[in-house]
Amino acid sequence: MNSIDDPGLARAQVGKSRHRLESRAKVTGRADYTHNLALPGMLHAKILRSTVAHARIVSIDAEAARRLPGVQAVVTAQDILKVIPEPYFGPAFHDQPILAIDKVRYVGEPVAVVLAHDPYVAEEALHHVYVEYDELPAVFDEVQAAKSETVVHEALRPAGTFPDLKHLAGRRDTNIALDFSVRKGDVEAAFAQANHVFEHTFRTQQVMHTPLEPMVTVAELTDAGLTLHTASQSPSFVRLEIARLLNWPEARVRVRTGLLGGGFGAKLYIKLEALAAALALIARRPVRVALTMEEQFYTITKHGTTFKIKTAVTREGRITARRCEVWWNGGAYADIGPRVTQKSGFTAAGPYDIDNVWIDSYQVYTNLPPAGAFRGFGITQMVWAYESQADIIARALDMDPVQFRRLNLLREGRPHATGTVMKDAALIQALERTAELMKWDEPLPRGQGTLRRGRGIGIGFKALVAPTTSMAMVSLSADGSCFVYSSTVDMGQASDTAMAIIAGEVLGLDPDTIRVIHPDTDVTPYDMATLGSRSTFHMGHAVRLAAEDALAKMRALQAELGLPAQDKPDAAQLLVKRYGMRAGNIIGIGSFVPEYISPDKQTGQSENITPNWMVGATGVEVEVDTETGKFRVVRMLNVGDCGTAINPRIVKTQLSGAAIMQLGAALYEEMDFDENGQLRNASFAEYKIPGIHDVPQDFGTEIVDACQRNGPFGAKGVGESGTFGVASAIAAAIEDAVGVRLFSMPIKYESVCQALQARRAGQPEEQP
Amino acid sequence: MNSIDDPGLARAQVGKSRHRLESRAKVTGRADYTHNLALPGMLHAKILRSTVAHARIVSIDAEAARRLPGVQAVVTAQDILKVIPEPYFGPAFHDQPILAIDKVRYVGEPVAVVLAHDPYVAEEALHHVYVEYDELPAVFDEVQAAKSETVVHEALRPAGTFPDLKHLAGRRDTNIALDFSVRKGDVEAAFAQANHVFEHTFRTQQVMHTPLEPMVTVAELTDAGLTLHTASQSPSFVRLEIARLLNWPEARVRVRTGLLGGGFGAKLYIKLEALAAALALIARRPVRVALTMEEQFYTITKHGTTFKIKTAVTREGRITARRCEVWWNGGAYADIGPRVTQKSGFTAAGPYDIDNVWIDSYQVYTNLPPAGAFRGFGITQMVWAYESQADIIARALDMDPVQFRRLNLLREGRPHATGTVMKDAALIQALERTAELMKWDEPLPRGQGTLRRGRGIGIGFKALVAPTTSMAMVSLSADGSCFVYSSTVDMGQASDTAMAIIAGEVLGLDPDTIRVIHPDTDVTPYDMATLGSRSTFHMGHAVRLAAEDALAKMRALQAELGLPAQDKPDAAQLLVKRYGMRAGNIIGIGSFVPEYISPDKQTGQSENITPNWMVGATGVEVEVDTETGKFRVVRMLNVGDCGTAINPRIVKTQLSGAAIMQLGAALYEEMDFDENGQLRNASFAEYKIPGIHDVPQDFGTEIVDACQRNGPFGAKGVGESGTFGVASAIAAAIEDAVGVRLFSMPIKYESVCQALQARRAGQPEEQP
Repeated sequence: MNSIDDPGLARAQVGKSRHRLESRAKVTGRADYTHNLALPGMLHAKILRSTVAHARIVSIDAEAARRLPGVQAVVTAQDILKVIPEPYFGPAFHDQPILAIDKVRYVGEPVAVVLAHDPYVAEEALHHVYVEYDELPAVFDEVQAAKSETVVHEALRPAGTFPDLKHLAGRRDTNIALDFSVRKGDVEAAFAQANHVFEHTFRTQQVMHTPLEPMVTVAELTDAGLTLHTASQSPSFVRLEIARLLNWPEARVRVRTGLLGGGFGAKLYIKLEALAAALALIARRPVRVALTMEEQFYTITKHGTTFKIKTAVTREGRITARRCEVWWNGGAYADIGPRVTQKSGFTAAGPYDIDNVWIDSYQVYTNLPPAGAFRGFGITQMVWAYESQADIIARALDMDPVQFRRLNLLREGRPHATGTVMKDAALIQALERTAELMKWDEPLPRGQGTLRRGRGIGIGFKALVAPTTSMAMVSLSADGSCFVYSSTVDMGQASDTAMAIIAGEVLGLDPDTIRVIHPDTDVTPYDMATLGSRSTFHMGHAVRLAAEDALAKMRALQAELGLPAQDKPDAAQLLVKRYGMRAGNIIGIGSFVPEYISPDKQTGQSENITPNWMVGATGVEVEVDTETGKFRVVRMLNVGDCGTAINPRIVKTQLSGAAIMQLGAALYEEMDFDENGQLRNASFAEYKIPGIHDVPQDFGTEIVDACQRNGPFGAKGVGESGTFGVASAIAAAIEDAVGVRLFSMPIKYESVCQALQARRAGQPEEQP
Repeated sequence: MNSIDDPGLARAQVGKSRHRLESRAKVTGRADYTHNLALPGMLHAKILRSTVAHARIVSIDAEAARRLPGVQAVVTAQDILKVIPEPYFGPAFHDQPILAIDKVRYVGEPVAVVLAHDPYVAEEALHHVYVEYDELPAVFDEVQAAKSETVVHEALRPAGTFPDLKHLAGRRDTNIALDFSVRKGDVEAAFAQANHVFEHTFRTQQVMHTPLEPMVTVAELTDAGLTLHTASQSPSFVRLEIARLLNWPEARVRVRTGLLGGGFGAKLYIKLEALAAALALIARRPVRVALTMEEQFYTITKHGTTFKIKTAVTREGRITARRCEVWWNGGAYADIGPRVTQKSGFTAAGPYDIDNVWIDSYQVYTNLPPAGAFRGFGITQMVWAYESQADIIARALDMDPVQFRRLNLLREGRPHATGTVMKDAALIQALERTAELMKWDEPLPRGQGTLRRGRGIGIGFKALVAPTTSMAMVSLSADGSCFVYSSTVDMGQASDTAMAIIAGEVLGLDPDTIRVIHPDTDVTPYDMATLGSRSTFHMGHAVRLAAEDALAKMRALQAELGLPAQDKPDAAQLLVKRYGMRAGNIIGIGSFVPEYISPDKQTGQSENITPNWMVGATGVEVEVDTETGKFRVVRMLNVGDCGTAINPRIVKTQLSGAAIMQLGAALYEEMDFDENGQLRNASFAEYKIPGIHDVPQDFGTEIVDACQRNGPFGAKGVGESGTFGVASAIAAAIEDAVGVRLFSMPIKYESVCQALQARRAGQPEEQP
């Protein structure tokens, strides 16, 4: 681990609330979004998509489309194969074809593309391409698919980058793309001895990320090779993967990314980039592939899950054993699903101190749109189950739910289920502060008539992605101008501002004067990706180290020039003195890779499975109409642990944004498939996301007073923490108000209504 | 001085002939020229130019132009002043307004600009702008202007960057923008004691650079500030100067330069950039300012000169004293003229070992188009005089001209006129090899009838510009891809290829696989400029040091990872091992600034006036028609000293290209002004440059076997050396053939004819 500055020191820049560097550009319409890019001679691509969930492609007749005036080309897999002989991509499995080859595997899969100068002509021409399918049996449910003889892929093709997937190579008989296990203690013995055993099944639904700027890639051939301008969270990965597909050196592929209009995990790895690259090579012109908002439903989604959770508890309320079985509905292509299965899988038993843990986590192929990373990276699905069950157990034992958690939460220095010892995870602080803000110790007025009030609390945690690497560069010019080079993508989380604050802190400069250069693989050094709340910690360290390297060079130059040593030297003065004029640069390099030990294949044990843990807790209060089941969240408080906040204003908006996003998944959002895998609501008329009137009127966020000692200036990420506790707290509050328990997300009015009716009719709770 | 590798070692890459990296891009039309750039919504600017040489502007009436359909705006100095309150630019003097303010100072000076989406509309609108002038007396001749009471500028405004110009600040009574002197020994005493004293006056004419890609700048406002896409030889300077004009930090100004379609000194410092920047700020849209080929005559030119040279010689042919007075016709704005005056000025006495030297060199303002840097940076004007006179002296003493030079040339270890001791200047080798190739010792068949043959030889030398700084960066990716970041502009001299060879030599990589990133002030580190044959030496060193820094980091990583030490480590292997995946970069930084001592203000003496000397010699054979004066160069051999050639193929094309360019200036090119300063031949119908049929049929280039011991791998620059000896060798050959001597360039058929007629009529030689 790299050395860190004493996090207790007073800071000039870190910890002060500050507006985003790009605020002015954003409000004046000059912000640098890929969606606004137009290149001379650019063609527009429109995608024809599969209308069936699983089928052999018998024929594609594009003649009528080709004859349409203004159509430049109609492209199918056969054309792709001429420029990319092995056109399968993916971060974990090389399973996804650029356009469907011989077979389609989900409704909405790209089958053909029309190219035209006018996007409306291209769109129109799609209606003149005729595809004949020979349908095949399909699988949609993750639990069924895990044991089905209907397989989505003829053979599994792990990418080779993850050692734990290698044993799956070539398997022809399964839809399971990863089975990850944790084994700790003796679960069966503990269950046998337990005072109480609770077993429940929880489900979550498939949802979509809904970034405000839909996915877009513009590809152009240049003198040096191929340039991709793409709204991507992972430009370094795009370069690597496109170079692999083309069998080119990375130096011939350039990937440029401006600001993103939201990402949330949707814009990771390869989305449109391979298609755009192939189209540019075929057409020998710049090609723009831009999705409509609706097309994103068919591109990448959040895993639906089934989670069987069984817990042994003592009379006093201590959890002694937990067995978790999680099936992740990965859709037709694995994307990063296997990593979700693993990283969230090992937290499935929750942030609790449990001696005996058994976890099985399965990534399962189905004939649905692919699922990948989504803000929270699987954690919200886990928290939904373990925090719902925590509330059920507390209620069953007649314990206060806060007290139940207080009793069981992992404390500093105690081992997590993987064996990794907890450090700097402010679980207790977050719980206590949430309870305090909720005035938990005071009785809640319950309301009257048909409107009943209840409250709930939820807490979750998340490990940081590992192993990953970030590099950064800091350059100072002879007028003192400072540039930070980072491949971190600013997608609204104000990472540019955070990096400027960190560089400014080290160098003694005002962050507002620092230019942060946007990702460009020809320019900014390597970064694994902008995901999993890793940038503040990883890139923050890399930028800190780069700035410290520049500082060391300036101090050396001071000594060389015989100048008195200064704590924060003046780059302009030094360079002018060194070069006799306004010339030269001071350039510092930083590289950061945290220590990490891969979990054991059989037991999932690791002494160091994560450099740190992110913690988020939510308290809610709901008001439920006992006649209709209609409810509203009247109060919501989100408490996060980000260590030391680099920029408190932004940390709070990250917490609130995450909580509202998860409010959508908790209450409204659900991709609604029929029995043939047809999505019924791929439209924002029918798929509701939270609007401003859905935000609870009493809504607050707070940062706990904590410090991540191995973080840059004591900081860690916070982009996801606000999502963790939301859904289960709402379900708990509903039970608290009206005595019914919901096991499936989203928590719809009609579900509450049906549960109330069932309870009145004396029917048992229905688990999914 | 930075340490250098032993130049005697065998090299894997250096010294092998190799095609340009961008060859394929050039022949397939993908090469990255600024001229091809189009931005959405871009406006085209067309410039209205002064029709008089010196006048007060009484009024500008643009109403009719503004009413023309399609015209977006007509911009005058009054509009510029609103966005740039002090709109005067220049590298040596802040004397040049972006558009003429109150006064015009030469025919062709920009007075107003029309902006339109259609360049033809903008062009047409220029005819509807009416300017009323109140004419003033004007000065055109440099010798007269130096003592004239008619001054071009009300007051002199040195930029402050050159200490030797500071004493001129505010002077209101002179056109002399720099008077540079060298004083060595006692010239008057030496003349008094001399056996022979020769005194002549030589003149050269004003010519233009004629880059194939005319000047072009596109300015756009971005979220970060202002980006200039410009065909510039000095992107770092452009950033600095535009930031100064706008009073912005450099971080808000980005300057990007692709390949240049030739530069030759024309595209240095500020040409269109300040105008384009101002127009973009006024219009709030991207603006393209692109000159026609003809407009370049009114933008920057090569100095015309008058050179009085007086030389004392012993009976045996040793030069004992030389007095030089040079007047440089700088035109209306100084540009870099004062530096030309100084740098070439101190070589005015030639590459000869002379005990007593007196040099005065004057940069003079006149009412002609500005003169600046031009391939050779003033050296060709000096060589024309001192080598012509060398030939005259040898002839007068009845000595062989080669023997005369052999006797007088500076040898290794001897002090030059400035006191700097000669090191690694292959003067004697170049002379001897040229003579050998010319078969100088064999008698030349003289021809018969009216066609007479003669031959001549000329040799020149040039100091490297100093002090200047170059920085470079080398980055290796995890697939082994290598990037070189350099602000050196490849304008046809194959500098990209040279830098790739140098990086490849250090790192053990094939130069063809290395990507050289083109200048972009947001990306590539500082470099003073691409000029004066400095890139191979300065940037070559910087790239070498950057690659060595990367190598050192790889070796450190080898040790850290416990791998066996390798001479040329494999970056991909190291990075994959270090980061556990294809991740990270190895980044090396190099910075180079050679030692330099400014010349003494009174005497011009300096122990180290240049890091090295460039040497070029030319031998020619001509055939002259004694009746008409028509002649042709039947043979031309160019010999250059570039130390060790990095890429011999390119060195030869640099030598031949330079020689042919100077052939144009020697024989054809001349800006022809009338008595009012009106240029009569601003058109390629009337201004002739050499075509392929003008290249002598017997044409050769050769590199002498030499080594520049302080150069990168023994190399130094060679972009200008081919120009040095051409003109004087032709004049000498003509005298050798038909006995007449020409003192003014260009050497036209009619001049030879008139001289032959005068000689027949018994008239004395007419000096200018």
